[in-house]
Amino acid sequence: MNEADLVHLLEQVKRGEVSVPEAVEQLRTLPFEDLGYAKIDTHRHLRTGFPEVIYCEGKAPEQVLEIVRRIVARHQIALATRAAPELFQAVAADFPDARYHREARAFVIGQPEAPPEGAPPVVVITGGTADIPVAEEAAVTAEAMGKRVERIFDVGVAGIHRLLFHQESLHSAGAIVVVAGMEGALASVVGGLARAPVIGVPTSVGYGASFGGLAALLTMLNSCAAGVAVVNIDNGFGAGYLAGLINLEKQAI
Amino acid sequence: MNEADLVHLLEQVKRGEVSVPEAVEQLRTLPFEDLGYAKIDTHRHLRTGFPEVIYCEGKAPEQVLEIVRRIVARHQIALATRAAPELFQAVAADFPDARYHREARAFVIGQPEAPPEGAPPVVVITGGTADIPVAEEAAVTAEAMGKRVERIFDVGVAGIHRLLFHQESLHSAGAIVVVAGMEGALASVVGGLARAPVIGVPTSVGYGASFGGLAALLTMLNSCAAGVAVVNIDNGFGAGYLAGLINLEKQAI
Amino acid sequence: MNEADLVHLLEQVKRGEVSVPEAVEQLRTLPFEDLGYAKIDTHRHLRTGFPEVIYCEGKAPEQVLEIVRRIVARHQIALATRAAPELFQAVAADFPDARYHREARAFVIGQPEAPPEGAPPVVVITGGTADIPVAEEAAVTAEAMGKRVERIFDVGVAGIHRLLFHQESLHSAGAIVVVAGMEGALASVVGGLARAPVIGVPTSVGYGASFGGLAALLTMLNSCAAGVAVVNIDNGFGAGYLAGLINLEKQAI
Amino acid sequence: MNEADLVHLLEQVKRGEVSVPEAVEQLRTLPFEDLGYAKIDTHRHLRTGFPEVIYCEGKAPEQVLEIVRRIVARHQIALATRAAPELFQAVAADFPDARYHREARAFVIGQPEAPPEGAPPVVVITGGTADIPVAEEAAVTAEAMGKRVERIFDVGVAGIHRLLFHQESLHSAGAIVVVAGMEGALASVVGGLARAPVIGVPTSVGYGASFGGLAALLTMLNSCAAGVAVVNIDNGFGAGYLAGLINLEKQAI
Amino acid sequence: MNEADLVHLLEQVKRGEVSVPEAVEQLRTLPFEDLGYAKIDTHRHLRTGFPEVIYCEGKAPEQVLEIVRRIVARHQIALATRAAPELFQAVAADFPDARYHREARAFVIGQPEAPPEGAPPVVVITGGTADIPVAEEAAVTAEAMGKRVERIFDVGVAGIHRLLFHQESLHSAGAIVVVAGMEGALASVVGGLARAPVIGVPTSVGYGASFGGLAALLTMLNSCAAGVAVVNIDNGFGAGYLAGLINLEKQAI
Amino acid sequence: MNEADLVHLLEQVKRGEVSVPEAVEQLRTLPFEDLGYAKIDTHRHLRTGFPEVIYCEGKAPEQVLEIVRRIVARHQIALATRAAPELFQAVAADFPDARYHREARAFVIGQPEAPPEGAPPVVVITGGTADIPVAEEAAVTAEAMGKRVERIFDVGVAGIHRLLFHQESLHSAGAIVVVAGMEGALASVVGGLARAPVIGVPTSVGYGASFGGLAALLTMLNSCAAGVAVVNIDNGFGAGYLAGLINLEKQAI
Amino acid sequence: MNEADLVHLLEQVKRGEVSVPEAVEQLRTLPFEDLGYAKIDTHRHLRTGFPEVIYCEGKAPEQVLEIVRRIVARHQIALATRAAPELFQAVAADFPDARYHREARAFVIGQPEAPPEGAPPVVVITGGTADIPVAEEAAVTAEAMGKRVERIFDVGVAGIHRLLFHQESLHSAGAIVVVAGMEGALASVVGGLARAPVIGVPTSVGYGASFGGLAALLTMLNSCAAGVAVVNIDNGFGAGYLAGLINLEKQAI
Amino acid sequence: MNEADLVHLLEQVKRGEVSVPEAVEQLRTLPFEDLGYAKIDTHRHLRTGFPEVIYCEGKAPEQVLEIVRRIVARHQIALATRAAPELFQAVAADFPDARYHREARAFVIGQPEAPPEGAPPVVVITGGTADIPVAEEAAVTAEAMGKRVERIFDVGVAGIHRLLFHQESLHSAGAIVVVAGMEGALASVVGGLARAPVIGVPTSVGYGASFGGLAALLTMLNSCAAGVAVVNIDNGFGAGYLAGLINLEKQAI
Repeated sequence: MNEADLVHLLEQVKRGEVSVPEAVEQLRTLPFEDLGYAKIDTHRHLRTGFPEVIYCEGKAPEQVLEIVRRIVARHQIALATRAAPELFQAVAADFPDARYHREARAFVIGQPEAPPEGAPPVVVITGGTADIPVAEEAAVTAEAMGKRVERIFDVGVAGIHRLLFHQESLHSAGAIVVVAGMEGALASVVGGLARAPVIGVPTSVGYGASFGGLAALLTMLNSCAAGVAVVNIDNGFGAGYLAGLINLEKQAI
Repeated sequence: MNEADLVHLLEQVKRGEVSVPEAVEQLRTLPFEDLGYAKIDTHRHLRTGFPEVIYCEGKAPEQVLEIVRRIVARHQIALATRAAPELFQAVAADFPDARYHREARAFVIGQPEAPPEGAPPVVVITGGTADIPVAEEAAVTAEAMGKRVERIFDVGVAGIHRLLFHQESLHSAGAIVVVAGMEGALASVVGGLARAPVIGVPTSVGYGASFGGLAALLTMLNSCAAGVAVVNIDNGFGAGYLAGLINLEKQAI
Repeated sequence: MNEADLVHLLEQVKRGEVSVPEAVEQLRTLPFEDLGYAKIDTHRHLRTGFPEVIYCEGKAPEQVLEIVRRIVARHQIALATRAAPELFQAVAADFPDARYHREARAFVIGQPEAPPEGAPPVVVITGGTADIPVAEEAAVTAEAMGKRVERIFDVGVAGIHRLLFHQESLHSAGAIVVVAGMEGALASVVGGLARAPVIGVPTSVGYGASFGGLAALLTMLNSCAAGVAVVNIDNGFGAGYLAGLINLEKQAI
Repeated sequence: MNEADLVHLLEQVKRGEVSVPEAVEQLRTLPFEDLGYAKIDTHRHLRTGFPEVIYCEGKAPEQVLEIVRRIVARHQIALATRAAPELFQAVAADFPDARYHREARAFVIGQPEAPPEGAPPVVVITGGTADIPVAEEAAVTAEAMGKRVERIFDVGVAGIHRLLFHQESLHSAGAIVVVAGMEGALASVVGGLARAPVIGVPTSVGYGASFGGLAALLTMLNSCAAGVAVVNIDNGFGAGYLAGLINLEKQAI
Repeated sequence: MNEADLVHLLEQVKRGEVSVPEAVEQLRTLPFEDLGYAKIDTHRHLRTGFPEVIYCEGKAPEQVLEIVRRIVARHQIALATRAAPELFQAVAADFPDARYHREARAFVIGQPEAPPEGAPPVVVITGGTADIPVAEEAAVTAEAMGKRVERIFDVGVAGIHRLLFHQESLHSAGAIVVVAGMEGALASVVGGLARAPVIGVPTSVGYGASFGGLAALLTMLNSCAAGVAVVNIDNGFGAGYLAGLINLEKQAI
Repeated sequence: MNEADLVHLLEQVKRGEVSVPEAVEQLRTLPFEDLGYAKIDTHRHLRTGFPEVIYCEGKAPEQVLEIVRRIVARHQIALATRAAPELFQAVAADFPDARYHREARAFVIGQPEAPPEGAPPVVVITGGTADIPVAEEAAVTAEAMGKRVERIFDVGVAGIHRLLFHQESLHSAGAIVVVAGMEGALASVVGGLARAPVIGVPTSVGYGASFGGLAALLTMLNSCAAGVAVVNIDNGFGAGYLAGLINLEKQAI
Repeated sequence: MNEADLVHLLEQVKRGEVSVPEAVEQLRTLPFEDLGYAKIDTHRHLRTGFPEVIYCEGKAPEQVLEIVRRIVARHQIALATRAAPELFQAVAADFPDARYHREARAFVIGQPEAPPEGAPPVVVITGGTADIPVAEEAAVTAEAMGKRVERIFDVGVAGIHRLLFHQESLHSAGAIVVVAGMEGALASVVGGLARAPVIGVPTSVGYGASFGGLAALLTMLNSCAAGVAVVNIDNGFGAGYLAGLINLEKQAI
Repeated sequence: MNEADLVHLLEQVKRGEVSVPEAVEQLRTLPFEDLGYAKIDTHRHLRTGFPEVIYCEGKAPEQVLEIVRRIVARHQIALATRAAPELFQAVAADFPDARYHREARAFVIGQPEAPPEGAPPVVVITGGTADIPVAEEAAVTAEAMGKRVERIFDVGVAGIHRLLFHQESLHSAGAIVVVAGMEGALASVVGGLARAPVIGVPTSVGYGASFGGLAALLTMLNSCAAGVAVVNIDNGFGAGYLAGLINLEKQAI
């Protein structure tokens, strides 16, 4: 509710077109639904451009199901992440068109808008094979936001020519997500080659002094290439979402 | 050099229009200038959309001056960061139109392109007064890339109403840079309010268990709001550059 | 035993009303009961205002049972935390009025004093749904101390308007417990809004660079809002107890 | 502005007693003053019971002076922390009644309310001599809030009988601040002896594996005594403020 | 082989009483037995006063059995630590007089020398009930070295009077082992009360910011009481062994 | 493809001996095979002297089998590490000459070249028995590269004479791999005794403040002996490979 | 005051030989002197066998001088550590027989008791030359306690034969202090060679990943040799004091 | 002294050609010179192939001068690292042929052996300009060992084509030293391109979350390229020395 709305509402009150109780109601209407254990942020779509996403870890199936119902009732599309296969079964019974992405451990209900003609893709890159689940979470998220996604997997810096072969893709990208564990150096190299913003996702893939992804995280944060930002370890969703936002901006103009 | 160029070059070789030595030369031309102590990446503008930026810390004035000369010779604009006032004096003698931004400790030579009509601004926000130098580095960088920048300073979460007053600005932004030390919570709050991508810059402002910015860094990485990514502690340049890239994308379409 | 008691005792000795061995006994009486594997601090109620609480983790059911018996024999109320359901079964057989709080994993025997008319509540707030078990441990503890508790769950900073809707509650509170994982920014925001002391409880909810609650802990310690103190990660009991103490003070006057 | 105020305002609008522009003004009035480099939170006193405190580190003397002027204009008392002696000189010229506390590095302008008859003191305890400056910051803060403060210095656990001698004081306290570096064990011992809430302030006093106060911080967070909460390393102000809030509660009833 | 031995041997060579090959053999005799997967340090008893102790974790039962055989063949006593009950079964079949200490997870074969009349005891103290297994490992080790051990359990600093009641024991001790988790403050308090050397054993008992014993470790290392040294987290054996060495010294004179 | 090859190819194009499309093909030929989930680096043997090694952790048996097939088709030998016994079963069905090394959890297919007459061995040393699996991974890797390996196990610094007995071996080595957990001091001692390069492998063997190998890692990195470098915790393969490379150099001249 | 004293005193009260006020006085006599900024623990000598030691860092010269006066008035000897040369000047004016140990940065007033005939020495060993100041602090402390000290400097493990040459000294020691920075491996090697208790002192000597002594600290804590305990980084005093205590025990019998 | 020497010596003793005292002398001759504050390891050249190197930090000029004298008296060459210019002045007065390398902060006295014809070079690479001092320390060290060194500076991964241009050099190297700060990704990329062993030297160049070189250290330790080992942060000497050893091996055959 911006100032213009406010002026309008107050003038309606003044003219008696809106009663005082109605105005009070409007001025404090809850932009969320309260389920007791959770408060669904129904206002979020207006505020940030995409409905609230369901993070399933630690939620009971019936809780997830109820939250899904509320979101589907208001929005064209719903996205749930960190969803075990069994959890998906419980939801799929009620939502037959729900689609499960096994590697991403995510499911989507409803159809995203088609990407506009000629929109540049979100490019999702991994250093190794073991980084693919996190990368898929990013890719599925961006696709749920109506983006075209191009996947380039297993092009880590130990064989840099594998990456260089895909330079064309790097240059055409609207946003790039780089998913890498171990030393995470791939984000810097991509950042030096590409024109688009690069979002690094350190993964917990590795052992010993990788300290659960800390090594890759620090590598990416200290990237000597400009144009690289980082999200939390294994946070494929966050990276895909941000890549989607960046592209959204682009398409909006 | 893409495949089409390659086909073209090889056909010229075949027809004898280009000699073999000339072709060899073209196929390996150095896309950088070698100064011995530094290799200026002249190819960078083509590759990533902005000339190489000079990070002055640890470079001698004559080294900086020489690198500036090379960049100015090829590009419309040059940007130097982490530049002490004395260093700037040395450069300003040769480049009278150089402009020094004292708080940002950066200087710019040349004129950025004007931002297109109606382009959304990059909004730069700080939690406190002490975060302003890092924020200015971000702002000056984005401005050097031809962006319009809006500054909102000292709106940390201990008085959240100060931030809420600027919601309009948050919604109009094309990209947001949030600069905050201490606990760094501001990035999460902004991420929940805004539609645009948010780039968090943790700063080393704080004491005790802030551990030189580590606390703010971890806070931002663990943000419960989607759409937030993070750059290195005190890396105002990196955030401004990334915000510029995001807006660049936007303007390009 | 303060100086007045000491003077009194010594005068009794002098007058022969108390024998020397009796006086020796009084001067060294054990203020604890020794069970071998544990020494129950029976003096604690006098010293700190609440009987010793039983931390069940790592104790055998028969050990817990015996300690419960000793405490119940001397006090109106007993509280046990970190109690698995099976452990509670073992105790409930002997204490049929014991009440188990499943989410808090705690049980209470006996009835707390009713809170005085008009006493301000302890308000317990969580950032997310997954923080609820820790919050319940805090709430059950404060209730066992005879406080009225108000629960506000799932109001994390990614949707700050959900919290702002409860400002009235924040202002009425006598003490506030903020339970949050991930980035833990909620404590700072509440600290900036509320008048009452705020006790932050970082939780181990999160992943990646949350490092088992370290991120939330550092966030809360570095809070830019004054009036916030912090207890150990997941230490709902400690926060609830401290909130109870603060309110106790208040009611005492 | 609560719901009752809102109803009242809207009814005035309806009755024409308040014009629409006036109402808009009231509904959005800035609860802060904007100095450009800082936004003074003038609303804070209403919200949290004490005016905004000036943290001087990193602010220029003229900035501090201006902020002091604004606060003094609206409130009975002003408190500034982390103030170097030179900074104080600059302020004292304009505010001759300003009092500087050298050890605390803080200054106060104006007179706090006298503590009510019989109000329990805030007790401030240190482990060693080197912890005194942080303790004084806590003490001066609580005194500025109108509390009576009792100081007990140099009673670390290496000579536990020195602390036991002051048990009477511990029992009479309304809130206790324990300031200790090195291993920080004093907070646990005091927590086991006292009835009042204990606020631990780890200090950076120590060497080697004290890691700038980290050891004392972890000790206090892991305290086996209930009723202990912790603020940031060297944060005397935060502890004194919280102790003041706790006592405030007490006096209010 | 010291210089006197060497002179003697060389003179025997010179006089022809020892052949050159025999001398070579003596000069390089292996002071260990080589089992392939392990090299038993048979020289250790001479060098350090106690036979090699068997650390069972990660060794197969038949490996442990073989090492036990070798040690028993040469020494009066054998001690094995970190021995699971099943492992002990495998050994007990061959060594019927082996004694298993369940809480310590250790077993002993053979009889230690009786402690000399009037020798001061090794005193082993714990902060809580959960620290007892580590304390028992220390106690069993010292007993295997022929020391008298006195156990004082569950006297943590949250109820400091429980410890003060045992001051007599503290003063009579020849060496003290303090075993404590959580914040580990007990070592400092004991160090301030006792005359004997104090060996602190931090344990991994605790949660949250105890970080697996790190908090207790740092506390003990930073002890403000002199006369305290620390061994590794949960290293009851190391502490008991060192306490035994200290007492050994004492008895030897 | 070096410059000479390029000149040759271009001259063939000029003379019409190679068509333009053929030349394009050659200039961009993939030096890897793309399996979708993995890109096998077939170029690696030329570039670094040994075919790509298969890291099995996190790969499905059919994925490993397919990668093995591709490598065996092009190279004389294949090496797979971190291979569970069950995984090996799946491969062994198709490759009957595959040899599994149980302790190393690695398997080899094909026959390495025999080491040249008189080539110095790679010496692999462990501090304890529990370090043997990591040491065997190093040894099997070096053997797969055609090196002779000498194993010296359980010679940790607590009984330094066990190591000194093997000085002859240390002096004859071409490269030395030191595998040690706990405090990892063995690498420094060996570095001071040996002429050959020493590669330290910290292991995660230990407990308490070994922090999963961090203590041994730091020890080795800070070695006061020159000539020591370190690989990741538990990275036996990396050490064996590097030792093989060093010896390879040696044999090449 | 033990039980026998207590019985005696009470009987005196009963017989009227001691008045009640006198008895009260005796029962609460302060075992410390209160200087305001410091509480001198005059009881400490009785309790722990050596007068309180003055840690000078952070104390003003006049404070140190006053504390020295009080200690000298009651004890035969006074020891002050971390004393800058200028501080010593201030003290030396009043105490002409004070002796300053420049490398140790410590001074001693008064004469320690001569060590008993044949008492084994405290042996103090360093890894390198840069560790000598910390070692001297340990040596001077032990000497102030009346011990004979033998110094063996610069025998780090990179040249292990330098240490082995001093095996005789290691075997004759009553207690050993090992002072080492960088990787700190010396403590383990000495622990494996010596019969006496070994106290490790990690130093902050080193660079890079020594992290201010953390590497050496972890090394020593994880020592694979039994009989090694550790004090804080650079804490020469603590190690010397503990070594003195251990020897004290020895001499007492 | 090996077994053959021993047999020979003993036979001389037997035949009376060597007296017993002479033999004792030979069997225990000190392989080091004792200067009190330092023990020069004169045996080191035989043991490890290069004389002891003087680490100057924390040594007085006269100490360095004396150590230099002893080394020069026995060896063809002396190398001193971490030598400030003033220190060098003090040495240069006595050794006019000493050569100071300003960037490396090292000096050399004497002439290394010329590298053998056709010996492959040690290649030293840096990521940036600020890494050059560490790289020069490595280069000067290898040169002092008689190696040919090739320098490639400022080829960090943000402009990967700058490195690719030097592939020829990478392939010709006998050993490669990669010196890089910030994120340190260069070591992985080089490891994937080169055939020779790669020694990574993380530098403390960087800011924020580089944590004094920790980020680069972890990156290099977790390198996904095989054939990479790591030395301590900023340890140019260690890397150059190891590279020299590797090449030494090569030349020896």
